[in-house]
Amino acid sequence: MKLLLSNDDGVNAPGLAALASSLQSLGECCVVAPDRNRSGASNSLSLERPLKPQQTHHGFWSIDGTPTDCVHLALGGLFNFEPDMVVSGINAGANLGDDVLYSGTVAAAMEGRFLGKPALAISLAGHEHYETAAQVAYRLVSQYDRLSGELALPPRTLLNVNVPNRPYAQIQGFKVTRLGHRGQASAPVTVKDPRGQTRYWIAGVGKIAEAGPGTDFDAIAQGFVSITPLHIDMTRHDSLEQVSAWLDLLN
Amino acid sequence: MKLLLSNDDGVNAPGLAALASSLQSLGECCVVAPDRNRSGASNSLSLERPLKPQQTHHGFWSIDGTPTDCVHLALGGLFNFEPDMVVSGINAGANLGDDVLYSGTVAAAMEGRFLGKPALAISLAGHEHYETAAQVAYRLVSQYDRLSGELALPPRTLLNVNVPNRPYAQIQGFKVTRLGHRGQASAPVTVKDPRGQTRYWIAGVGKIAEAGPGTDFDAIAQGFVSITPLHIDMTRHDSLEQVSAWLDLLN
Amino acid sequence: MKLLLSNDDGVNAPGLAALASSLQSLGECCVVAPDRNRSGASNSLSLERPLKPQQTHHGFWSIDGTPTDCVHLALGGLFNFEPDMVVSGINAGANLGDDVLYSGTVAAAMEGRFLGKPALAISLAGHEHYETAAQVAYRLVSQYDRLSGELALPPRTLLNVNVPNRPYAQIQGFKVTRLGHRGQASAPVTVKDPRGQTRYWIAGVGKIAEAGPGTDFDAIAQGFVSITPLHIDMTRHDSLEQVSAWLDLLN
Amino acid sequence: MKLLLSNDDGVNAPGLAALASSLQSLGECCVVAPDRNRSGASNSLSLERPLKPQQTHHGFWSIDGTPTDCVHLALGGLFNFEPDMVVSGINAGANLGDDVLYSGTVAAAMEGRFLGKPALAISLAGHEHYETAAQVAYRLVSQYDRLSGELALPPRTLLNVNVPNRPYAQIQGFKVTRLGHRGQASAPVTVKDPRGQTRYWIAGVGKIAEAGPGTDFDAIAQGFVSITPLHIDMTRHDSLEQVSAWLDLLN
Repeated sequence: MKLLLSNDDGVNAPGLAALASSLQSLGECCVVAPDRNRSGASNSLSLERPLKPQQTHHGFWSIDGTPTDCVHLALGGLFNFEPDMVVSGINAGANLGDDVLYSGTVAAAMEGRFLGKPALAISLAGHEHYETAAQVAYRLVSQYDRLSGELALPPRTLLNVNVPNRPYAQIQGFKVTRLGHRGQASAPVTVKDPRGQTRYWIAGVGKIAEAGPGTDFDAIAQGFVSITPLHIDMTRHDSLEQVSAWLDLLN
Repeated sequence: MKLLLSNDDGVNAPGLAALASSLQSLGECCVVAPDRNRSGASNSLSLERPLKPQQTHHGFWSIDGTPTDCVHLALGGLFNFEPDMVVSGINAGANLGDDVLYSGTVAAAMEGRFLGKPALAISLAGHEHYETAAQVAYRLVSQYDRLSGELALPPRTLLNVNVPNRPYAQIQGFKVTRLGHRGQASAPVTVKDPRGQTRYWIAGVGKIAEAGPGTDFDAIAQGFVSITPLHIDMTRHDSLEQVSAWLDLLN
Repeated sequence: MKLLLSNDDGVNAPGLAALASSLQSLGECCVVAPDRNRSGASNSLSLERPLKPQQTHHGFWSIDGTPTDCVHLALGGLFNFEPDMVVSGINAGANLGDDVLYSGTVAAAMEGRFLGKPALAISLAGHEHYETAAQVAYRLVSQYDRLSGELALPPRTLLNVNVPNRPYAQIQGFKVTRLGHRGQASAPVTVKDPRGQTRYWIAGVGKIAEAGPGTDFDAIAQGFVSITPLHIDMTRHDSLEQVSAWLDLLN
Repeated sequence: MKLLLSNDDGVNAPGLAALASSLQSLGECCVVAPDRNRSGASNSLSLERPLKPQQTHHGFWSIDGTPTDCVHLALGGLFNFEPDMVVSGINAGANLGDDVLYSGTVAAAMEGRFLGKPALAISLAGHEHYETAAQVAYRLVSQYDRLSGELALPPRTLLNVNVPNRPYAQIQGFKVTRLGHRGQASAPVTVKDPRGQTRYWIAGVGKIAEAGPGTDFDAIAQGFVSITPLHIDMTRHDSLEQVSAWLDLLN
């Protein structure tokens, strides 16, 4: 198996190193990641300038772009590596509920949607126990053939995995979940620059709004690894009729 | 009605000016847009630095950030304007099928998901007939009360509107559609910098892969305005069982 | 006379508009400026990516780069305009003493050093009386032929002009000056980002250290327009012997 | 002796590693460098956003800013290190003649002008023999006390050192030089982006225009280490009278 690894915390992040060292016994790994922290990059592509891949001292590829740029270039053949699947992470911090809209970690996995196997995004709900998330990644990837085989997950699917920030022995198990929701983000933080001008710093995620049983928030809170299948088609099929009725007014 | 307008082509783009002048008779408009072209920005947030809003000569707000930053700051109260809904566009070029993953225009609308009314993203499938798209925007927004009222579109819904690039009189009508799909993107374009180093420029969208009847691609090809309801919840509910079966192996 | 105008405050800055409207009766003006505020850009060149000039609604050229990029591209023939001289400004705030090392306004003028006539950088020691600085610019440029003719200022010379922030009638006259000096900059300002990490914001210029008679600081303090001739050759000719003696130890 | 090291090629450049390992026996070294290649950054300061220093795996400090930012923050006390002098390099490629205007390597050294000892900028006229330049740096720094002592180089002086790209045994000796000059830069290179728009890429330095005996170009051509003393005061003292005569017309 050939694995393409990426992340959004940047090529020097500890989570990426942990992921690479955990998965390398399962197959050949090619690591391509942003040269800087690009948390919050979502699926953004750098269209205004060409990109320059550079190899780092530990053999990873570093790109002056976004997580999506990295996977896009890798699948475009730049590194002479044809991956079977994309694994993205280990993100420093959870990607739960609406976080997935903004997450570069999830976006990197999503960019692998044309490959045969479902892509995997892995986040640690904290900043300490990367080795737990690395072990989770190892277990998931080594069982992956079955998922894309007999279980026949549909194409263009992505698994969003969140891992509790605790030793592996204290993990309660694995749970399939749906995304919860966050409420509106807290207001931007006001800072003054040294010349007295006011600037506004985006404060990040909103408070948890929907975290009931079955959600990813709930699984993490109970100490389970949360696994949410995501699709890439954003069509709201159950609203097609309503919109159609509305359009009758316009036509 | 109070309307928050944004886009991803930047505060000086002709599509934004056309949108603003078309909608201002329907309500108070506040325009907040990126200071540069940010096409392909997706839902990316600028988390690494504070942002500086500046008012331009025509009263629009210009922000050194992404489309999502713009709407995020506006909803965070920066401009003393509490909008009823977000309208984003008019994008220079279509946003069809998988384009919506990368589009900053769609992302700006998505950031308005906490408001009562469905948000609207409007794109012109070309670069000439902005006045057609502006007229379409006017008709949609003026009928919008009904959509959020008696038709009761669910919360966290977004309408992705694409308009054929032709005079309004030649528009065939309005069609509700589902997203088609594009295939894998074409390979990055190789350029040499003046010092002889190779760089790679992302080539943009892939070829159309699924554009059958009912898709947004098909509506545009036939000269109809395409209206696709999008949801924001990416959970693949129909795969929960399969993943659950798979997890039994791991638990 | 053909004049190339630029600045470092960006293409939409009021000082640039004032400069252009003041000088256009003296010759054909081509305006090429950064799309954003690039104060502090010094002589920096964008070497890592290609640049995209775009024309704004008032006919100025806007470039996604530095002041030096702007003049560099203009002299490289991009706008089919062969200027006789470069005028840069009107900067919002003074450029006195060591400020010239960091100033993009001065750097833009410096990039015009290959043209026949000395280049001109104009800064307003404040943010109100742009019309005063515009009138000063008009008077200087209209007398410029003499400077490059009978007075034969050497090639590769630049005039750094600072104008007191007061009505023109209250200007005491014009003074030739040498650069004063600033002491070490004040310490960077510490800010916390919304995630609790400490960042450091450069606080700007140091306190005035040498501002005695004959300096630019002194002229401005007394209400005179300060004009400092600058050269571009940084060789310290009077130290060549000392360094030579030192090298004897190494050879 | 406490040495502050920086460069403009970025914290991972081989020249910086060679410099640090060469100088560490002469004193305590603190290394602070840009996180990316910032060649051509000149003395630019990042004023629009706060900076985030991060320590790399080999103990260097990496900053998301310019070379001048790096030295500025270090002298501002961020790293609890009070250096005696600044050494910048080893640059990949020469910094000769007008190159010093644009060089971030020279600018980093210049930012150390408030310290007691002259600062040092070291560039390799090529990309292979970093060990030669490292040995040159070692010899210069170990003799530096004498330069700032009995030879009493004036304050605010900088030595710009260029080293031939050859084995140390083939170095002909050390020469004090003045800066030569380059002619106007070659025209920007035109590239097409993947969407067909024309962009312009700055092509870099102009051809050599003045490289006679005594210049830095000449010393390098003959196989000598070139050492040019630079001052920071850009006042053209020998033109003060001419400008004064001209101003009589205006007063």
